Amino acid sequence: MSKSLPANSVGIVEPKALEFDEPLRLACGRTLERYTLVYETYGQLNADKSNAVLICHALSGHHHAAGYHSEDDAKPGWWEHYIGPGKPLDTERFFIVCPNNLGGCHGSTGPTSINPATGQPWGSDFPAMRVRDWVHSQARLADALGIGQWAAIVGGSLGGMQAMRWALEYPERVRHCVVIASSMKLTAQNIAFNETARQAIQSDPDFHDGHYLRHGTLPSSGLSVARMIGHITYLSDDGMGKKFGRELRSGSFEQGTEEPVEFQIQSYLRYQGSNFSKGFDANTYILMTRALDYFDLAREYGDDSAAAFAHAQCRFLVVSFTSDWRFAPERSREIVNALMAANRDVCYGEIDSHYGHDAFLVPGQQRYWDLFQSYMRNVEV
Amino acid sequence: MSKSLPANSVGIVEPKALEFDEPLRLACGRTLERYTLVYETYGQLNADKSNAVLICHALSGHHHAAGYHSEDDAKPGWWEHYIGPGKPLDTERFFIVCPNNLGGCHGSTGPTSINPATGQPWGSDFPAMRVRDWVHSQARLADALGIGQWAAIVGGSLGGMQAMRWALEYPERVRHCVVIASSMKLTAQNIAFNETARQAIQSDPDFHDGHYLRHGTLPSSGLSVARMIGHITYLSDDGMGKKFGRELRSGSFEQGTEEPVEFQIQSYLRYQGSNFSKGFDANTYILMTRALDYFDLAREYGDDSAAAFAHAQCRFLVVSFTSDWRFAPERSREIVNALMAANRDVCYGEIDSHYGHDAFLVPGQQRYWDLFQSYMRNVEV
Repeated sequence: MSKSLPANSVGIVEPKALEFDEPLRLACGRTLERYTLVYETYGQLNADKSNAVLICHALSGHHHAAGYHSEDDAKPGWWEHYIGPGKPLDTERFFIVCPNNLGGCHGSTGPTSINPATGQPWGSDFPAMRVRDWVHSQARLADALGIGQWAAIVGGSLGGMQAMRWALEYPERVRHCVVIASSMKLTAQNIAFNETARQAIQSDPDFHDGHYLRHGTLPSSGLSVARMIGHITYLSDDGMGKKFGRELRSGSFEQGTEEPVEFQIQSYLRYQGSNFSKGFDANTYILMTRALDYFDLAREYGDDSAAAFAHAQCRFLVVSFTSDWRFAPERSREIVNALMAANRDVCYGEIDSHYGHDAFLVPGQQRYWDLFQSYMRNVEV
Repeated sequence: MSKSLPANSVGIVEPKALEFDEPLRLACGRTLERYTLVYETYGQLNADKSNAVLICHALSGHHHAAGYHSEDDAKPGWWEHYIGPGKPLDTERFFIVCPNNLGGCHGSTGPTSINPATGQPWGSDFPAMRVRDWVHSQARLADALGIGQWAAIVGGSLGGMQAMRWALEYPERVRHCVVIASSMKLTAQNIAFNETARQAIQSDPDFHDGHYLRHGTLPSSGLSVARMIGHITYLSDDGMGKKFGRELRSGSFEQGTEEPVEFQIQSYLRYQGSNFSKGFDANTYILMTRALDYFDLAREYGDDSAAAFAHAQCRFLVVSFTSDWRFAPERSREIVNALMAANRDVCYGEIDSHYGHDAFLVPGQQRYWDLFQSYMRNVEV
């Protein structure tokens, strides 16, 4: 390991890519004839191929969950604090696989890829993706890697939805399902925030009905506002208050100054929005938020979530965070109640935190770490 | 009263306008040389001029708080359910005055008015307004109407901030102060939502740095998104769930349909946003949200809210709603605690409601009505 990288990191990692030629029939009725999945792996697959763990990413996530892409890399993967030697997702025990989802914008086939039928970027013509489509494509990735059964499938938020769908679609292929800060379906308020974010993007004149790449533009303003909306809702009121309060970036509240006073939170949000809009694709953002909105675990089981979970065979860990108001603990308790009603084996932890929905990504939360680690230590490999 | 209008309405009302030639020195250091205030009144001023009640409006409010502008008028004023004969703000006892605030877009001088210096609409050159500026201009309106002392000043949300500021700026001119769903200052989260709304407006290419009227455009998309953000945060998650759930506007969740399914909440929000953007001025929206952000009742009193309220002489009614997460009951309790620490006379009601911040406007809430009415009945005239 390089001197410059932390000893408990997986270190330098390299994304891999797999091409799939077998057509993938999608929930929307359309078919993706061929596609690429980009993914990263950490740790070693054992001889029995029994120690594989799948990480499913959330709205703005990707395949780069841990480690660094070079020694100069300023930032590690998005779940660095929880993946690595001695961490809850222990790379000395597990072979960890994290793909970028179809429809993403980090290498897997998505709206920025070339549509073979036109020779142009797909843009908004890229087919609508549902959580089950990701699960099916991830199953093919497992096949390609020779993984018949995952020791565990782990995901936060939209990732947790994929983990739950896996447990119902391929019950014999999952031993443990870890569902963090997630929900069996979105509330009306959640859908409303997503819809507002989409409106911000779609009403940007540079959006061009989703074909901005053909027009040589990017709907950066709209995507930036969309991300600002998201960002506020991933933090808690309390956490924002602790971090920013009403602190000023500069200037003062003196009367007699016309210059608008700027609060720290304003410049922070603008920076977050603008920065995000440089590295993320607007069509992917729309596609991912739609997948969130449409997800409804029990819809095809007569809206009976216990009947749905009766199809699962794995054990479950469900985790929520007290200050998460976008995916509130109540949503996790609904999952736990449905699992218990279905006689499934479930462990539930409600973590005291002021980090809001983002808590599942944030380091330094001892109780979360302890629960996550002790559960994963009991996952047989 | 017309047959077509409800008997307990104030009926047909007509806005009035007063021109003020005396320059108004503003908190930002600039001066408004002359200005117009548009206002409505309901009920009769008594001989002693002791029964006047001032209504202060909130972000998107205006002077038309009750009654109808014509017999064909489809909608009454915004607080129709609480103003009228036999209602909490009883027009058989009180003379009610409701002005449109300076910087507004319903007739009082604001960004859409002509700047005498240029002969063009003010646009974003209109001076920044603070809550105290509204209070000072309302005091001049009181002078013009011969009202030395208000029996009560009543406001919800941003209106409550004006009522509190009145109690500190002109203690001898207020006998009762009614502060509903308000706060002594915004939280970081509140500022963040306002900032995101402003970004949505300002990044609309039709905004033209706030001089859209000169360009013959309107930043309707941006204002629409801003309103959608606001609207979500004025409702409660629970209330939205009860009203919309995950109901579909049309179509179904069948797999094999590419057509995006639309939830009721999506079309509702888009309608609200688009409708609002037709009747409201974007610069006014920015100006009003800034006034909200900057308001900090105790700032000039050494950040000691009890020291601030020690300057008040009136009695207070403070009301909050359990599901209001934008101006949470905790914010109202802070007001009550500060008032008690200052030995002021205060009555507090925390109303069980699932209407969120909007609850202060919503009819049919018996406990709110009862509390409001019984308090106002004890206001001597």
